[in-house]
Amino acid sequence: MAGKNYYDVTEWNVGDPYKDIGEVINSMLADIKSRQTDSNVEEGGKPGAVIYIPSGDYHLRTQVVIDISYLKIMGAGHGFVSSSIRYNLPKSEWEDLHEVWPGGSRILVDLSPKDADGEAAGAAFYVERSGNPRISSVEFENFCIDGLHFADDGSGKNDPENTYVNGKTGIYVASAQDSFRITGMGFVYLEHGVIIYHADALSVHDNFIAECGNCIELRGWGQASKITDNLMGAGYRGYSVFAQNFGGLLITSNNIFPRGTSCVHFDKVARSVITGNRFHSFYPGALVFEGNCSENTVSSNHFLRDHEPWAPMLKNDNGLDDRYGLLRISGNHNSVIANHISETIHRQSIKPAGAKPVIIHVVSGKGNYISDNHIVATTEAADAQTGASDSCFSAQVDALTATDKLAVLDVTTVLVAKESFQNTILDSGSEEQVVLDRRVNAFRATPVPGGV
Amino acid sequence: MAGKNYYDVTEWNVGDPYKDIGEVINSMLADIKSRQTDSNVEEGGKPGAVIYIPSGDYHLRTQVVIDISYLKIMGAGHGFVSSSIRYNLPKSEWEDLHEVWPGGSRILVDLSPKDADGEAAGAAFYVERSGNPRISSVEFENFCIDGLHFADDGSGKNDPENTYVNGKTGIYVASAQDSFRITGMGFVYLEHGVIIYHADALSVHDNFIAECGNCIELRGWGQASKITDNLMGAGYRGYSVFAQNFGGLLITSNNIFPRGTSCVHFDKVARSVITGNRFHSFYPGALVFEGNCSENTVSSNHFLRDHEPWAPMLKNDNGLDDRYGLLRISGNHNSVIANHISETIHRQSIKPAGAKPVIIHVVSGKGNYISDNHIVATTEAADAQTGASDSCFSAQVDALTATDKLAVLDVTTVLVAKESFQNTILDSGSEEQVVLDRRVNAFRATPVPGGV
Amino acid sequence: MAGKNYYDVTEWNVGDPYKDIGEVINSMLADIKSRQTDSNVEEGGKPGAVIYIPSGDYHLRTQVVIDISYLKIMGAGHGFVSSSIRYNLPKSEWEDLHEVWPGGSRILVDLSPKDADGEAAGAAFYVERSGNPRISSVEFENFCIDGLHFADDGSGKNDPENTYVNGKTGIYVASAQDSFRITGMGFVYLEHGVIIYHADALSVHDNFIAECGNCIELRGWGQASKITDNLMGAGYRGYSVFAQNFGGLLITSNNIFPRGTSCVHFDKVARSVITGNRFHSFYPGALVFEGNCSENTVSSNHFLRDHEPWAPMLKNDNGLDDRYGLLRISGNHNSVIANHISETIHRQSIKPAGAKPVIIHVVSGKGNYISDNHIVATTEAADAQTGASDSCFSAQVDALTATDKLAVLDVTTVLVAKESFQNTILDSGSEEQVVLDRRVNAFRATPVPGGV
Repeated sequence: MAGKNYYDVTEWNVGDPYKDIGEVINSMLADIKSRQTDSNVEEGGKPGAVIYIPSGDYHLRTQVVIDISYLKIMGAGHGFVSSSIRYNLPKSEWEDLHEVWPGGSRILVDLSPKDADGEAAGAAFYVERSGNPRISSVEFENFCIDGLHFADDGSGKNDPENTYVNGKTGIYVASAQDSFRITGMGFVYLEHGVIIYHADALSVHDNFIAECGNCIELRGWGQASKITDNLMGAGYRGYSVFAQNFGGLLITSNNIFPRGTSCVHFDKVARSVITGNRFHSFYPGALVFEGNCSENTVSSNHFLRDHEPWAPMLKNDNGLDDRYGLLRISGNHNSVIANHISETIHRQSIKPAGAKPVIIHVVSGKGNYISDNHIVATTEAADAQTGASDSCFSAQVDALTATDKLAVLDVTTVLVAKESFQNTILDSGSEEQVVLDRRVNAFRATPVPGGV
Repeated sequence: MAGKNYYDVTEWNVGDPYKDIGEVINSMLADIKSRQTDSNVEEGGKPGAVIYIPSGDYHLRTQVVIDISYLKIMGAGHGFVSSSIRYNLPKSEWEDLHEVWPGGSRILVDLSPKDADGEAAGAAFYVERSGNPRISSVEFENFCIDGLHFADDGSGKNDPENTYVNGKTGIYVASAQDSFRITGMGFVYLEHGVIIYHADALSVHDNFIAECGNCIELRGWGQASKITDNLMGAGYRGYSVFAQNFGGLLITSNNIFPRGTSCVHFDKVARSVITGNRFHSFYPGALVFEGNCSENTVSSNHFLRDHEPWAPMLKNDNGLDDRYGLLRISGNHNSVIANHISETIHRQSIKPAGAKPVIIHVVSGKGNYISDNHIVATTEAADAQTGASDSCFSAQVDALTATDKLAVLDVTTVLVAKESFQNTILDSGSEEQVVLDRRVNAFRATPVPGGV
Repeated sequence: MAGKNYYDVTEWNVGDPYKDIGEVINSMLADIKSRQTDSNVEEGGKPGAVIYIPSGDYHLRTQVVIDISYLKIMGAGHGFVSSSIRYNLPKSEWEDLHEVWPGGSRILVDLSPKDADGEAAGAAFYVERSGNPRISSVEFENFCIDGLHFADDGSGKNDPENTYVNGKTGIYVASAQDSFRITGMGFVYLEHGVIIYHADALSVHDNFIAECGNCIELRGWGQASKITDNLMGAGYRGYSVFAQNFGGLLITSNNIFPRGTSCVHFDKVARSVITGNRFHSFYPGALVFEGNCSENTVSSNHFLRDHEPWAPMLKNDNGLDDRYGLLRISGNHNSVIANHISETIHRQSIKPAGAKPVIIHVVSGKGNYISDNHIVATTEAADAQTGASDSCFSAQVDALTATDKLAVLDVTTVLVAKESFQNTILDSGSEEQVVLDRRVNAFRATPVPGGV
């Protein structure tokens, strides 16, 4: 089998994959390196290999350390189930469950990282290589990485299983890399799903990353990558997507659900595009451009902000108030075009009390272009107040059927801060809904019925 | 092999997969359940399994019934070929065909459902489980489900193979489920490709679903799912995509071709998004929002309506006339932004004769926002009349080259019914092309050349 | 194994896959045809097969010729690495490289096509079949096709490895086909990645096609296909995407990087859609519609044009000057809506010197609709001039951080040629930035700060 550069974790001569799949995979990696030693024999020599993880429960007690290109680790199922729902059931109900744990080709991350070891110590899969070329074309496909439990955060506020912290990361890429692929994976109950430094031509496509503290973090800097077609949703403390000093990032076709302190958070990102996504948030700051984010475009997305409906999570939020902006833009020459933005919140829950919520908030920079956005702000009618629900699922379905009974909520659809100028705001709110200095910005109000 | 939770239908000890793959798979499912009995041993215990279907022709005479999570059924090819073209060839030409039938990993659905047994009886794959948790992470990947034949519909109008009815369904999910995936599949000659009730975090991605009565039907209610990157086209009776009581559905990057009574039909769907698709239709009603559909967005799509070019299908349509609306919107606060809509039809085929076709028809509700849509309506020049074709393919290619010779067709680009109000219609037609009550709606005409 | 229609190139009785995988695969194809002879036995008979290529380096000295439907050729890794970076390193540094060559399941294309044999002779995989039905559902998945070297082009201008010519093609489909899939592949150092004539319902999805002369060429004619979610970038001579006489093509969710004479080039394409992509170009003509391209839409894309930063490529460009148009539209009734377009170039590099660059150039046709595009044109401030870089990667990252220091560049955002009329240009530039004949076109200027 090894002659074919194919490894099955259940058929290896070192370690027990069910006790510690990390030891097994590291042994396989050593074997690949011992066999593929000549980097230039007949214009080949180091083609890499496949490591296959059949359906099963595999504890990981040793971190997998990857430093070879062209490695594919593949499983036979992403295996997601909601651990959050399970942990918020009474233990007495567990024995009636059809199955308790996630499944598929499932890695149980049994690391116990200590703070002193640094963040990377808690990663199930750790990738790092110095020298040239950058490590290339590592592929992760169709298995499940399960962090198992969240941990007491010392605050006494939440049940430990609801904290979204445990020091664990699914995949951690520490050094510059090229043409990696993460596809068809499942991530659950990790503080960090995917952390990647210095990405080039990365593809994170068609994964399921939910009930993680953060889903995807692209750190350091990077270029020319795509985050596409994923189902995602971070915890209330973290980011569903975070990118830093990035150029040419394409974020499209994702369905990002709550909670997440942000759906997408950019820090000094330029010339990137967020288009064709569905974003659902429970808090202000669903989309944040901080630092100097320039020449990005946000178009054709659907944003929804409504309330946390699920009793166990009601005590949490991201700490931001409603003047922060549901979309918050800092930087130059960004575009926000052709989005639909729905905000539906209880009037009495607005923070600070009596404030007028801000939907798009341009806080600094110049030359931003905000055009043709349809902003729908509603609040429950007096007689339609609904309480929290035992089930986050049924609550959402209930909310749907109630859209017809909503009353208009008075909001600022676009607020341009005094520090910001030379912006163009078109068809994104009426005269009353858009607040800016007309002497230094361009403005065209959305016509109103019976109009001016 | 079973120790690895891997099953190959050609290597099992019960049944003959070529005679009845249903019996074989059900036996495998029983085996998985008999082996995976403890739901909580060392924080695992029920990881599920893979069932592999090699390339081959597998008759299915027993319905597969799935009630376990983390099952992956995978094949080695989606195997589509046009059965519609074949059935409309003279039988004498069949013996010259390179191959007659679809292929790949192909399930031949040989069920004979009776009306009395209900719709689900005709499903090749039937999923249902009560209790908790919801059945999760079942994956269908890269095989072909072929309904083989359509049936006489009693009308005498069409050849039985052109009726799009046979009582058969590819995949039928009857109970609430979570995080299912349907990827890389082929579906052909089924009355229903995929029927899913109560979907949550469903992914239907990169499939080929064509020549089916209906392609994808999401029924009951559901949330936070995606239908992305599929090639699809239903028959003249059915829906390419249907969704009901859904919230947070993302429909993007699909190429949906005719026929289909609708490309997308929403019934009481809210806060969902249809963006970046190509929609091709032969009839009015390409996109229909019925019931109370609210806060959805339809943006950056390309719509084309033209005529049925293929002789065997000329007698069929969806029964709607040209006043119905190519896009028909019922509900509140929906957005229709930045779409291109082409309609090119013969003047003498307009129904009722002499009517002015309607492109976007808002029939009820309030607060809808329709902006920046480019609507191109054309008709054949007097000397350019083309007849029907023997080949649906060559006819389309012919039509392409003729776009230059088309004359302008007079249409109502946007019609807002009297029952509907507080809508905003911008840059989606000239003064003459948009019909609404200006006292209760907002309107800005698209400027015209030389214009006002 | 053969009974399961499954073939592993390393386990076959004819040829040596490492010396000539072409001979091995052709022998397998002959075997499939010798076994699958009856096209209609029990409504099946020719299901096709899978050919599996494990991770490894496989020289191809004989062209693979495919004429059967339902064939899937699959590997275990796309195996891309930048060969361009390697070839531009001093040879003395090669021995310090971790690996020299691409990897994964890698085909080394060792063909030596002669001009006299025609273009197809240089194809690694050649598909052709006459008769009916069209060859269907061939799938290429997750392997690497490496052209190895570029060749001296006789010009003396470039190092042979930087010419992007070698007469080699990865996949060449010569005859009409249906429902093909190309997914998860890697293509590198081929003059042509994928050439497909007469495509119907083709899917080219989630591939990595870079450092090829051309990436995807859809020739002849075709319909109803999709190019989605790919990472791509052609050489300075060729197209990243080319399509001809096509209808209903969907190009979405792609991240296309330089160089490429065009990111997308359409020749007589109609009713197609380019949406939600990121396009990065070093030259004018990033998007070109030539011939009579009609009723297409270009929406929600992000375009960036900046300068070649990498020393070895500085001498090359596509020969076009800055009056050509970054987007060049010829044809009728096309839509260009809701795009962000950034152009940032050195003032002294503008060709011809002193010219005002044109961003969107409508050169012929009528009825085009260009609306709500945000065009950002900048140039380096006098003190911010940066030189070329040894690394194309770090140069891009540097460029990012400099966006804040850019000065405004004076451009024509939209130029409508005299030959073109009845176009509508809205909110895509100020009075000064848009040049057209107002008597025959419609125009609304983007409002400017402090207003008119």
